[in-house]
Amino acid sequence: MRLRDLGEFELIERIRKRFPTSSIPVGIGDDAAILDLQPGHSLVYCSDLVAENTHFKKGLQPADSVGYKAVAVNVSDVGAMGGVPMSFTISLAAPGELELSWFDAFYTGVERACREFGVTLAGGDTSSAGSIFVDVSMIGRVRTGGAILRSGAQPGDGVFVTGSLGASALGLELLQGGKTGPAVQRHLYPQPRHRVGAALVGVAHAMIDVSDGLSSDLAHIVKPSGVSARIFRERLPKADGASDAYVLHGGEEYELIITAPELPSSVEGVTITRIGEIIASANPEVRLVDGSKESVLKPQGWDHYSPLL
Amino acid sequence: MRLRDLGEFELIERIRKRFPTSSIPVGIGDDAAILDLQPGHSLVYCSDLVAENTHFKKGLQPADSVGYKAVAVNVSDVGAMGGVPMSFTISLAAPGELELSWFDAFYTGVERACREFGVTLAGGDTSSAGSIFVDVSMIGRVRTGGAILRSGAQPGDGVFVTGSLGASALGLELLQGGKTGPAVQRHLYPQPRHRVGAALVGVAHAMIDVSDGLSSDLAHIVKPSGVSARIFRERLPKADGASDAYVLHGGEEYELIITAPELPSSVEGVTITRIGEIIASANPEVRLVDGSKESVLKPQGWDHYSPLL
Repeated sequence: MRLRDLGEFELIERIRKRFPTSSIPVGIGDDAAILDLQPGHSLVYCSDLVAENTHFKKGLQPADSVGYKAVAVNVSDVGAMGGVPMSFTISLAAPGELELSWFDAFYTGVERACREFGVTLAGGDTSSAGSIFVDVSMIGRVRTGGAILRSGAQPGDGVFVTGSLGASALGLELLQGGKTGPAVQRHLYPQPRHRVGAALVGVAHAMIDVSDGLSSDLAHIVKPSGVSARIFRERLPKADGASDAYVLHGGEEYELIITAPELPSSVEGVTITRIGEIIASANPEVRLVDGSKESVLKPQGWDHYSPLL
Repeated sequence: MRLRDLGEFELIERIRKRFPTSSIPVGIGDDAAILDLQPGHSLVYCSDLVAENTHFKKGLQPADSVGYKAVAVNVSDVGAMGGVPMSFTISLAAPGELELSWFDAFYTGVERACREFGVTLAGGDTSSAGSIFVDVSMIGRVRTGGAILRSGAQPGDGVFVTGSLGASALGLELLQGGKTGPAVQRHLYPQPRHRVGAALVGVAHAMIDVSDGLSSDLAHIVKPSGVSARIFRERLPKADGASDAYVLHGGEEYELIITAPELPSSVEGVTITRIGEIIASANPEVRLVDGSKESVLKPQGWDHYSPLL
């Protein structure tokens, strides 16, 4: 059997089963892990890797965007737990033949991310390899018991999203067509909603960031919560020019999906839209209401350039 | 200019200059970073990557050893700061065609490392890529102000090493020749000395683990400390069958080099050997005393299978 035959989520499940994390409040399977260091203070801890030709193509995506995004996606993961991102390590493997200008531009993007998100590079590792591989791990802080998990959604909650959806997938399409514009910028330099996430500690019941697409990531809430979600097509906040498919299934948005009894229409200056509701259900699924029709919304995932594992 | 033209240490220096880590007690350039979370308690934080064909060959090194070693080298880095390793993330990228048996064996090695070192897998990431990449990041704890840095060596200190040297390089040579034995086991399943490192907080002045070889890693102490070291060839604790070159320059030993006024002959059950002394010097270097001859010992580094960056 090959890895491809199982797929990424089954592989993660396989790892999770082998590593009971009973000494850790939150382990494998959420946006980040939670570790209690001292009474009152917990650590949020995660990592996210970026592989050439799987997550980016060197000729298409500028090097500074690769560096910026590698940090941004981890900031997003920490924020999706309600955490405040603090510090990170970068491990970078690359061919010895790589131009030094790529390397320097990569770190220019990392610097921009440090400035914008208020995080600090703590260390890392560098090595040669046949292609470019970047892994960022990040730590943040959250008050003990405050972390907002995927598993906390309750019947009666509203389902909310920050900002708008579909721009990143549209941006990738435009980028591949040699075009520029706001959607391309959104794809290359996403704005994680960590400040919104941290502001919702004690308010939100469940939260996740949209990295695989609304359909997939909302499924990641309903399954561990043991509930279903109904979302309404006409309420979805669509980015300018984005197709319905991009809004429902486009990945790398880094907006937050939040469930809570109620939320204001804006948090930390970011628009919050109520797109649906959480309902009790013996068979957790995401349902899409489109006018008078209601159907199951299957998770479609997001495959970057090459098929996911 | 290409990365190969600069080399790994110059690349790290290039990153360090761009990222002032004034808000972090210890940032880029030691075995791990140190972050103060709360009065009295600091976090030790590091990452280490493993790339196929650079650090291991799939046909030569068993998958469980790849997983075990990826954790062990980070345990060693945390220990080399005087820290107690706690938890880690693993990011693994691999071709979709990879046999699931390799994946499972990899995590069997990770499990063994968790058991032996008392650490917990907190999370990570998985993705497809053209070849296998593994990055482990690890956090540990140390009392604030207790971390043992590379820069603390003082004239009058002795230079000490744990265990013996040269076995890992010999083991790699034997492995490549199709042989087995204790040195091969030592190369595949190294024993980091983190318990010794943690026991020396408040005692040792400077510490580093031997990942690049005695000549290179002792140079990493004398340069930031602004001192020189004299080591005596006849005092070097040689692993059975190891050549002088392996003892002086062999990497991936994961023994500790320690400078301190005095140390007992055994710490945490591990033999400690005094191999030399730290002396005042305007021109930091490592000197090798061989009978009546004394010469400068140049760092030779350790190049695994392919040239380092």
